[in-house]
Amino acid sequence: MKKDAYNLALLCDFYELTMSRGYFHSEVKDKIAYFDVFYRRVPDGGGYAIAAGLEQIAEYIMGLHFDDDDIEYLRGKGLFDEEFLEYLRTFRFTGDIWGVPEGTVVFPHEPILTVRAPVIEAQLIETYVLLSINHQSLIATKASRMVRSAKGRPISEFGSRRAHGEGAAVYGARAAYIGGCNGTACALSDKLFGVPAGGTMAHSWVQMFDSEYEAFETYCKLYPNNPTLLVDTYSVFGSGIPNAIKAIKEVLWPMGLKKCAIRIDSGDITYISCKARRILDEAGLTDCRITVSNSLDEYIIRDLIMQGAQVDAFGIGERLITAKSAPVFGGVYKLVATEGKDGIITPKIKISENIEKITNPGFKKMYRFYSNETGKAIADLMCLHDEEVDHNGPMEIFDPEYTWKRKTLENYTVREMSVPIFKNGELVYSFPELSEVRDHCAREIATMWDEVLRFENPHAYYVDLSEKLWNLKHDMLSQKK
Amino acid sequence: MKKDAYNLALLCDFYELTMSRGYFHSEVKDKIAYFDVFYRRVPDGGGYAIAAGLEQIAEYIMGLHFDDDDIEYLRGKGLFDEEFLEYLRTFRFTGDIWGVPEGTVVFPHEPILTVRAPVIEAQLIETYVLLSINHQSLIATKASRMVRSAKGRPISEFGSRRAHGEGAAVYGARAAYIGGCNGTACALSDKLFGVPAGGTMAHSWVQMFDSEYEAFETYCKLYPNNPTLLVDTYSVFGSGIPNAIKAIKEVLWPMGLKKCAIRIDSGDITYISCKARRILDEAGLTDCRITVSNSLDEYIIRDLIMQGAQVDAFGIGERLITAKSAPVFGGVYKLVATEGKDGIITPKIKISENIEKITNPGFKKMYRFYSNETGKAIADLMCLHDEEVDHNGPMEIFDPEYTWKRKTLENYTVREMSVPIFKNGELVYSFPELSEVRDHCAREIATMWDEVLRFENPHAYYVDLSEKLWNLKHDMLSQKK
Repeated sequence: MKKDAYNLALLCDFYELTMSRGYFHSEVKDKIAYFDVFYRRVPDGGGYAIAAGLEQIAEYIMGLHFDDDDIEYLRGKGLFDEEFLEYLRTFRFTGDIWGVPEGTVVFPHEPILTVRAPVIEAQLIETYVLLSINHQSLIATKASRMVRSAKGRPISEFGSRRAHGEGAAVYGARAAYIGGCNGTACALSDKLFGVPAGGTMAHSWVQMFDSEYEAFETYCKLYPNNPTLLVDTYSVFGSGIPNAIKAIKEVLWPMGLKKCAIRIDSGDITYISCKARRILDEAGLTDCRITVSNSLDEYIIRDLIMQGAQVDAFGIGERLITAKSAPVFGGVYKLVATEGKDGIITPKIKISENIEKITNPGFKKMYRFYSNETGKAIADLMCLHDEEVDHNGPMEIFDPEYTWKRKTLENYTVREMSVPIFKNGELVYSFPELSEVRDHCAREIATMWDEVLRFENPHAYYVDLSEKLWNLKHDMLSQKK
Repeated sequence: MKKDAYNLALLCDFYELTMSRGYFHSEVKDKIAYFDVFYRRVPDGGGYAIAAGLEQIAEYIMGLHFDDDDIEYLRGKGLFDEEFLEYLRTFRFTGDIWGVPEGTVVFPHEPILTVRAPVIEAQLIETYVLLSINHQSLIATKASRMVRSAKGRPISEFGSRRAHGEGAAVYGARAAYIGGCNGTACALSDKLFGVPAGGTMAHSWVQMFDSEYEAFETYCKLYPNNPTLLVDTYSVFGSGIPNAIKAIKEVLWPMGLKKCAIRIDSGDITYISCKARRILDEAGLTDCRITVSNSLDEYIIRDLIMQGAQVDAFGIGERLITAKSAPVFGGVYKLVATEGKDGIITPKIKISENIEKITNPGFKKMYRFYSNETGKAIADLMCLHDEEVDHNGPMEIFDPEYTWKRKTLENYTVREMSVPIFKNGELVYSFPELSEVRDHCAREIATMWDEVLRFENPHAYYVDLSEKLWNLKHDMLSQKK
């Protein structure tokens, strides 16, 4: 997607511009700032989230500049002096960014992205960085829930029409694919990212013809390879399924083709799908699959399967593309350290009345420990960036809140979670194909215990702080009070 | 916004492309189709919605074409023959569109937009038309609720970072402004649409300086005209407010400036704002306003005001930009009629197991009746396009479900709701400035009875069918059964 057409430099909160001019004219201008992106709570009360949206951030950073008309707009606000506007005219991002690869399982308070840059640069990218991660992580996480709920049955995302604008449709389809959906209805997302697009007919197709049968017959002739016929325009059992059977037998069978499907978009899915299955089988259409849609989500899918609904594939619209039950991924962008010309890094903390809003200070890195016996993830550890984690010996970790809860890890493999994305403003990361991101996500889910993955009362995965980081945080908290 | 950069022709559901090729090779190719856009239920259980998103649809229609790389993408799918691809190469929209002006109050089942075009053209625009109306009407409606809840106190939209992609941020800010917000934090929405953007400081500003006081002092020097100081980085009463008072007295007062504000972004807003007001007043800062933010919505705003919170302005992020409590505006695009070469219009109906999903057939128009005594809206009437409504005499209307419920309207003024937007593919509507749309919306709300506007158990506004339309619908329903 051509970012420059959107002039995305101004897709920022206005205060980033006023603050930037403020930094520019103050003594902190040349300071380096470290910002962490992290989230505080898993949407839907779930136990994990999927990180996504990183590639769009990289595109945004690479294209980031202020056009003449951006400068003109800012001048018109009467708040920005010419010296600062001149600075913006040649503005480029020159900092470093680390991030967890897209499709990775991430837990609350873990840095998904860390930005190290001169303070103005770090401040100006805040909104887009959050917007991209918040949006795509939200949808990838929701898709992952739905996909697990469907127990191997394919899910198509087709919510573009209910998406919150064009980016929500196009990037939402991308994120849903990362989370495990099999495809999308959004043609643009296929063209741009290779998310497999498919689709068959709307009710309007059926209504445009003089009869339902003619609509089905015409469609089967035009698309004899695996057509899906929508059977609920008038009456599923009164006309839809009989007409579908007739069209398939009269058009497809003489061509030696058997693969086909019907789609049900309304009514009691369990009852209708079971009865439809029986009718199709009795007519010899055992190769005819049943796909369903109609305001589905992970809970309804789970219920349908429990009730024995005869469903081969799901189409999911509004409840996926808007993450309807919990449409906010609350990622935040918080200053965690500054660095002066002397190279000394000073950790920073944000205190709050809301305990949950207190940040983890310092320039950090994060490790995940896997059991060598089971291959499952055991715990994550947040450390300061210069800490060495002994990769071999037994390792004691402790709960950052209830510090007497301690655990010794043995026979583990450890992985550092973040990778360098930008170095001195240059992209140093090679983004994988989207299908590889999707595979990575599936492998990540496979390393999680069922207790972490379940919908109700999931186990709170261990995210611990190193002793050094814990001490730093508590020293800072007591000093500030 | 430069639409062509996004190649929005492919921002469609793939089935619109497969169906279009199907129409192209069938005998319905040259038929004219009539589609209505309408919604079925007001989000949040409310009594009304605000229509928005029309101007973006007009831009989309005007820019609509298939680029070479779109054609190449489609060729690669192996489903589209060269004759059809050649047709797409010169594709333009040549039809007619009628719509209700943005900012208008609309009720369930009323046509917000009606498209009359050759069937392929009408089908291909389905997704974008719905996406734009669904997104912006959702946010405008939510904003309208919040604005009424704030009882005259200004509301700033600042949810870009939690928006579902860039369009959600930029158009969301536009829609929130239509619904009555006073401004946005999104600079791009200001540049593109003139939604007034503003903003002050983040916690990072405070943290970047050696002390909170220095941060406030620096900011006041740089922005002495009405600065807003964020007082909850460390401790609201322990340091934030005392430092703010000191900075304002030492920097602003000597310049003869009094206007300023503090912002509270966490904690118990009622308690903190009341105590803050007392402290500010005692310090002589009676001109210092208090603005608050922190996951607010229309219910929390109402509660804060009921509890006597001392709040002068609200900042609203995620719960507005995602319409968190009900993030789907369920607008649909339904075939209501076809027209052959003979010019005869044939009404179409979609029947469903879900009664609510049965459509109102035919090419229609809609009137709203206002009482001449009160100026308030009394009822809406949906008619067939060739019906004449007597604008003077008494007029009997009846409930389309409980037909014995009848009402005679007298001493009324009647207004036709839709206006022509496109005629033969040409834009014939002059879009008003966005501030005029916002004013129109405010006037629309003023014509609604409080019973329609309230949050809980709102009165169901009368949306009736003309006798002729009612008879047509019921005849079609009995025939199809």
